[in-house]
Amino acid sequence: MTGLVIWFTGLSGAGKSTVAEIVGRELDARGAAVEYLDGDVVRTHLSKGLGFSREDRDTNIERIGWVASRLARHGATVLVSAISPYAATRAKARAMVEEHAAFVEVHVATSLEECERRDVKGLYEQARNGELPEFTGVHDPYEEPEAPELRLETEGRTPEESAAAVLAKLDELQAVRA
Amino acid sequence: MTGLVIWFTGLSGAGKSTVAEIVGRELDARGAAVEYLDGDVVRTHLSKGLGFSREDRDTNIERIGWVASRLARHGATVLVSAISPYAATRAKARAMVEEHAAFVEVHVATSLEECERRDVKGLYEQARNGELPEFTGVHDPYEEPEAPELRLETEGRTPEESAAAVLAKLDELQAVRA
Repeated sequence: MTGLVIWFTGLSGAGKSTVAEIVGRELDARGAAVEYLDGDVVRTHLSKGLGFSREDRDTNIERIGWVASRLARHGATVLVSAISPYAATRAKARAMVEEHAAFVEVHVATSLEECERRDVKGLYEQARNGELPEFTGVHDPYEEPEAPELRLETEGRTPEESAAAVLAKLDELQAVRA
Repeated sequence: MTGLVIWFTGLSGAGKSTVAEIVGRELDARGAAVEYLDGDVVRTHLSKGLGFSREDRDTNIERIGWVASRLARHGATVLVSAISPYAATRAKARAMVEEHAAFVEVHVATSLEECERRDVKGLYEQARNGELPEFTGVHDPYEEPEAPELRLETEGRTPEESAAAVLAKLDELQAVRA
């Protein structure tokens, strides 16, 4: 099995993890060795103590990129869900991965307005109240990918429909090979 | 290929990385998907900013254990070289790995006297001079493994002979399986 990293980037609440999980289940059913690196989970295992300054965010993303590249090198299909707001840092992650495996960047392009309207975890409210500093989209920038493999529009689509769009793109790119 | 983690623990300068590299070359020649997680290298990629307090050392080792477990789950043969001085933390790493793969602990049992005599990197001298604090064996404890899969005596042996002893143990354990 050839390794692959599918990197979901987008605002908090955009639906990255939800879509990644549905895509992962389907790839698992197709026989891929699926591994999830979720930004929040990884912060427990890899990046305890890091905050949300640009430097700490970059360290976190480079670390995820490094682990993803190691895993993909051994044939894993790695689904990364991480805000990863800075283009330069995403490019570094891509470069590390592409030494060993394919990299598919999926911009989960849910708008700030929609993420804030959903506010599933109540984080946007906390950010607006000043209880959460350095919040992407509120205080900190999100640099939109200029040339992602897929710009995923999620509004007016179910998560399953969004996942289907990702799978269609993977098929088109012939990214998943046994 | 079934995953495997070979965990080399021992004092600074004991010969962990040297032996791990020779073992890794041989396993690579046998067709294993070899990955190295060297304590010093990992500190760049995974643990920048961590120091050498017990807490920081434990965080570093748990992080290595987590990454090793992920890699082994995908069939990699992971060679870890890390002082990993605390028994409880090594046990945590073992538990994480054994959810997915075999774990072989190799205690590279070069004595403190011999490590200090060699002092390849000049670190013991710096530690004795007070230039390096929290140095294992000088200021900080090294808890010897009570029941490692292999206690490797290196004194009076070439690194190649030490590596041969590790490979013989792996064969005995039937740890490397295609």
